[in-house]
Amino acid sequence: MTSTASINAVKSISDAIRSQIANLRGEFADKLAALVGIPSVSMEPDRHADVRRTAELACSYLRNSGAHANLIETRGLPLVLGQIVQDPSFPTLTIYNHLDVQPADRDGWKTDPFVLQVVGDRYYGRGATDDKGPALTALFAARLALAAKVKLNFQFLWECEEEVGSPSFAGALAELVKTQKLRTDSIVVSDTIWPSATQPAIPVGLRGLLAFVIRLQTGEKAVHSGTTGGAARNPIGELAALIAACYDARTGKVLIPGFYSGIRKISASERAELGRAGFSGKNFKSAHELRSVRFASDARLREAIMIHPTFEVHGIVGGYSGPGVKTIVPHAAEAKLSCRLVPGQKPKEVFARIKRFVAKKCPDAEVIYDAALEPYLADSKGPFLQAARAAVQETFGRRAALTREGGSIGAVVTMAAALRKEVVLLGLSLPEDGYHAINESFSWRQAEGGMAMFYQYFQHLASMQPGAT
Amino acid sequence: MTSTASINAVKSISDAIRSQIANLRGEFADKLAALVGIPSVSMEPDRHADVRRTAELACSYLRNSGAHANLIETRGLPLVLGQIVQDPSFPTLTIYNHLDVQPADRDGWKTDPFVLQVVGDRYYGRGATDDKGPALTALFAARLALAAKVKLNFQFLWECEEEVGSPSFAGALAELVKTQKLRTDSIVVSDTIWPSATQPAIPVGLRGLLAFVIRLQTGEKAVHSGTTGGAARNPIGELAALIAACYDARTGKVLIPGFYSGIRKISASERAELGRAGFSGKNFKSAHELRSVRFASDARLREAIMIHPTFEVHGIVGGYSGPGVKTIVPHAAEAKLSCRLVPGQKPKEVFARIKRFVAKKCPDAEVIYDAALEPYLADSKGPFLQAARAAVQETFGRRAALTREGGSIGAVVTMAAALRKEVVLLGLSLPEDGYHAINESFSWRQAEGGMAMFYQYFQHLASMQPGAT
Repeated sequence: MTSTASINAVKSISDAIRSQIANLRGEFADKLAALVGIPSVSMEPDRHADVRRTAELACSYLRNSGAHANLIETRGLPLVLGQIVQDPSFPTLTIYNHLDVQPADRDGWKTDPFVLQVVGDRYYGRGATDDKGPALTALFAARLALAAKVKLNFQFLWECEEEVGSPSFAGALAELVKTQKLRTDSIVVSDTIWPSATQPAIPVGLRGLLAFVIRLQTGEKAVHSGTTGGAARNPIGELAALIAACYDARTGKVLIPGFYSGIRKISASERAELGRAGFSGKNFKSAHELRSVRFASDARLREAIMIHPTFEVHGIVGGYSGPGVKTIVPHAAEAKLSCRLVPGQKPKEVFARIKRFVAKKCPDAEVIYDAALEPYLADSKGPFLQAARAAVQETFGRRAALTREGGSIGAVVTMAAALRKEVVLLGLSLPEDGYHAINESFSWRQAEGGMAMFYQYFQHLASMQPGAT
Repeated sequence: MTSTASINAVKSISDAIRSQIANLRGEFADKLAALVGIPSVSMEPDRHADVRRTAELACSYLRNSGAHANLIETRGLPLVLGQIVQDPSFPTLTIYNHLDVQPADRDGWKTDPFVLQVVGDRYYGRGATDDKGPALTALFAARLALAAKVKLNFQFLWECEEEVGSPSFAGALAELVKTQKLRTDSIVVSDTIWPSATQPAIPVGLRGLLAFVIRLQTGEKAVHSGTTGGAARNPIGELAALIAACYDARTGKVLIPGFYSGIRKISASERAELGRAGFSGKNFKSAHELRSVRFASDARLREAIMIHPTFEVHGIVGGYSGPGVKTIVPHAAEAKLSCRLVPGQKPKEVFARIKRFVAKKCPDAEVIYDAALEPYLADSKGPFLQAARAAVQETFGRRAALTREGGSIGAVVTMAAALRKEVVLLGLSLPEDGYHAINESFSWRQAEGGMAMFYQYFQHLASMQPGAT
């Protein structure tokens, strides 16, 4: 891979293509409604049959688009592989998306999260923006490119375990590489977010993740706080103290010794690119409906998301949770936690440091590993990234800002390692889409723009000098 | 009231009475089963109809025992008043118990908490020991005493809101005093616990209670910890830090400025009485199924329960609680808390100190008042307590230890103030009864002994010199 490749000019997006895209709106809504209509929640074992039904439906979409498509069985939930080989001499692009979604109960949702609601330009439903909408967008763009006789082979990899940290993906991919000789020339992933709806962004880095549970049990049952209070240990109180010892919740600063060791320094030019992304603390607060945030400065806020690691408490459970105050001393408490990690940090090492710290502070607390994803850093000067920037410029009329994504996509690191090709992150989600939140949505504006952007990107890839890869 | 009254000798408990009590075993089990069979959970609005049904059933028990009994309506749940006036010239004893119970779901219970299970000597079910069993025990003893022509009038006050901090009791009692000229010569309450099954104990003090909720909301919905993590505040993390700032969970020491102000010092002889109660850390741990406790020394443990105030976290809720780790930043977190208070502390003052402390540490956290009960300290040298000690000695063959109860009974303070008479705490519950816990039980041994003890106590009251009160 070279970092000096220049991008061939391709035809700018034509009115004919724009109009073909506009005609796809109804079909897009129908297909998205069918996908959203199946609650493919990989985190909930009861929903695993639904995840499989979603994979089968997605497979049929791929077949109807001319692909040879199958469910690939893994140790966990299946993977969908769809291949459109027009000519073995054409370069092959692997398009990765995922079909599984975050859990959603009705709490806080304006409508049923698993029934797509179309309100104006917006599609509301769990998975609309993460990642069913972008998956369909890329597929529709590939159909348009095939109709326009693009000289490219397509290989769709649709995962069904992204939301649980991709536990089977690396194994399944290694198997495909070994037994089916799966190869590619490059990879594109559409599962990232622009910091501003008006400024396209291409992330060149992803945070990693280390998820774990801390559990403390001091008795076998809840006891009466009059009869035992003062003498009995309180596991919620002790867990709260432990969390407070791990990090300063007001600033987010992690207090675990060695936590920040090894982090790769960011350059002034990388930092300047982050500043171009249009991140606004005000918009960020309003998009995520936050009453207040940790810092007043936009720069500190965006860097807290894009380049710093975190310690986060996702949930805590212990004791009485019904109406009123039931005066028990609880017997157990549990917190669900994770750290987002940045390039230079290794999940294994961080986990060992956390375990050591907890063992010292509260020896009978258990630290239970849940999942880990490595952080990722792309080649921001390589040909694929240049092609992506060109496609964005041609479609949206603006130069993409090179950002870092605060989230983690385990499959990105896995594919880069297993297929040994560059991964480009061409995301379409917006802050207002409610990624991983209630009332998740995707917009036709991003689907429409996304189809044009992918169409252009495919043209660039097809026209790329073979030597460029 | 004098502190030098001596107790008249009464006949020791006869074999005839012992045998009459033994014959009541079947009826006791039947009546307790009927009471336990109605889930009179005052804390759950859905159960309020059941609370009323329980009050009506209890009323019928009183009427069948010769009482004039009625439901007294209050601002909340009704109060049962049952009066047996044999002769207006006899002294009147008010017997207080409560009919409402703690919540109980099936979780951790070996059998349905609202279906009485008799296993050998034990009656399992919610409310068996707190306080339906002791209420029936006192009623049965009164029937025996009436049959033996005791010169005493009885007045039963059975409350239905004890477990929610008696919000309507003071008002209802004031009304009864005013409109029905409710009077009494003394009061007995049976809702306390012996620290050891082999050593009868009479508490001369009760801890008070201040229950409250701390709630922190930093956003309108859960958001994605990749997209927002680092910039978004974490209300669970901040609430944990706040709890850790309020108290040292390992030792129970409260760190809120002024929390310990005004506490009445305990004398060496009072402390020595606590030591006589047979409290054993080993038995305490095993009775409450605690894996470990805060202190190694028995003296420190029993004093932590009997004479020191507490800060306790009863429950904490926030963020994701389903399977796995869902990597959200939660938008709100809430802890249910209380402080047990000791003589000299005032709930109002303590609440103001807590509010001030929280306002300083985390200005947008709300501190919501839930309930308060004053601590109580009896006249440990008065005639009623001497009578109670005599009754215990005559029944159980041991001198009662004068203890302090770790729990709180709001009605005690209310009755002492409204009726201006001494309250004696003649409890029957044992550490192994699971007071406020799962698999709550009461034993026939304590019911049987309790009936004899009350019978003797009634004889002592009847024989007491009028001047003694």
